[in-house]
Amino acid sequence: MTQRYKITMAYDGTMFAGFQIQDEERTVQGDLQRVLTKIAKGKDIKLHGSGRTDSGVHALAQVAHFDFPFELSEHAMERALNTSVADDLSILKVEKVGKEFHARFSAVEKTYLYRIHNSPIRDPFRREYCLWHPYSLDCDRLQRALERIEGEHDFTSFTSTKSPIQNKVRTIYEAALIHNQAEEEIDLIFRGNGFLYNMVRVLVGSLIEIGDGRKPVEEIDRLFACLDRNQAGPTAAAHGLYLKEVNY
Amino acid sequence: MTQRYKITMAYDGTMFAGFQIQDEERTVQGDLQRVLTKIAKGKDIKLHGSGRTDSGVHALAQVAHFDFPFELSEHAMERALNTSVADDLSILKVEKVGKEFHARFSAVEKTYLYRIHNSPIRDPFRREYCLWHPYSLDCDRLQRALERIEGEHDFTSFTSTKSPIQNKVRTIYEAALIHNQAEEEIDLIFRGNGFLYNMVRVLVGSLIEIGDGRKPVEEIDRLFACLDRNQAGPTAAAHGLYLKEVNY
Repeated sequence: MTQRYKITMAYDGTMFAGFQIQDEERTVQGDLQRVLTKIAKGKDIKLHGSGRTDSGVHALAQVAHFDFPFELSEHAMERALNTSVADDLSILKVEKVGKEFHARFSAVEKTYLYRIHNSPIRDPFRREYCLWHPYSLDCDRLQRALERIEGEHDFTSFTSTKSPIQNKVRTIYEAALIHNQAEEEIDLIFRGNGFLYNMVRVLVGSLIEIGDGRKPVEEIDRLFACLDRNQAGPTAAAHGLYLKEVNY
Repeated sequence: MTQRYKITMAYDGTMFAGFQIQDEERTVQGDLQRVLTKIAKGKDIKLHGSGRTDSGVHALAQVAHFDFPFELSEHAMERALNTSVADDLSILKVEKVGKEFHARFSAVEKTYLYRIHNSPIRDPFRREYCLWHPYSLDCDRLQRALERIEGEHDFTSFTSTKSPIQNKVRTIYEAALIHNQAEEEIDLIFRGNGFLYNMVRVLVGSLIEIGDGRKPVEEIDRLFACLDRNQAGPTAAAHGLYLKEVNY
């Protein structure tokens, strides 16, 4: 009999080659599985994430589950993990869950955050944590474009052409903007039932072209209709992106 | 004829062995002098900082000056510097000043910030930017201890015993606390007419012992009186410290 544990974790993606395990690269899954196997006295433990995050992408609350061979309290598991992992990864919460829980398949909603430092002057402290965009972005234009993103759409134009997934229809419940004027920061929030590969980053790359005036606000509608990745904006940098929340 | 320039800069201290130039180590002064010499077409340029910052210490607005052999507008100098330095250093402002201005000797007041992440759980995003203190700090006790620090005192107990400076009397105009409860962060601010080597870090190390209840609030008075570094708290970690402002 094994016990299933759900863990919620934050990580600074800068020094990870993404979430998913890879040979000869440091990954979140690789680090955690190594630590779990040590705690399990050598038994192989497989970690299941809510989904991958790319190299350089951060997480404020990534979720994963694993089955563990011994009885350990939630607190003891949290302590065992946090004292063993490196300091760019932190376990925020450990919960015992039933076998019906699956970090990926049980997820009903995810929220991503994309941080843009919109200032003519670079901020050394945000170089790994925000996209730096030195040209002025018009929040009113961004706001109107974001409204067009909410709802059910075919996101073919906003995902990598390499994506093997057939059905590219997803629903965005919320596409919002928080403008922190004192910090010269524009944070974009996307909450939806699912996200395709690179979807938030291509959305942000396209929104930036609208925000700084290179493209009209209606560009969003045109991109939804044309179903062609090549017509959308560039894939915005990984280091501005955060997996903010996974809901079950 | 040379023109004197005053520059104000921010840097993330993580990857620097401090401000002051050293052989075979990366320093802020070393990086800037190399870039300035390149802009000056090979002429050696000497940079004078408002003071040193130690390895790992950050700056929100460090000030320095240098004399430059050619006429260059403030904007052109800012562009030339910012396009040449690495992205953990940013020139915030360039001003032409008269020869009477000296970054170190003209400074009348400095402000330091010390950031403490006071939470049982580590935050991967603040690991290089805050001291992590997992045991609860009492802000009311800290506040009362900070009030005792304001004013003119002999700071012998709060500086490195290696300091060659004879007069250890300094005036602290402001010793304050900002408690950001949502972020579980306690920021300590120290504004004064001068600071001895490690002074803010030893003050913070001593304040933490008061804040978590190991020492009474009156410990501050006792430490001012005993003039003995060995009786004060430990030197708090460099990565929580920021040079916040230099006033002239």
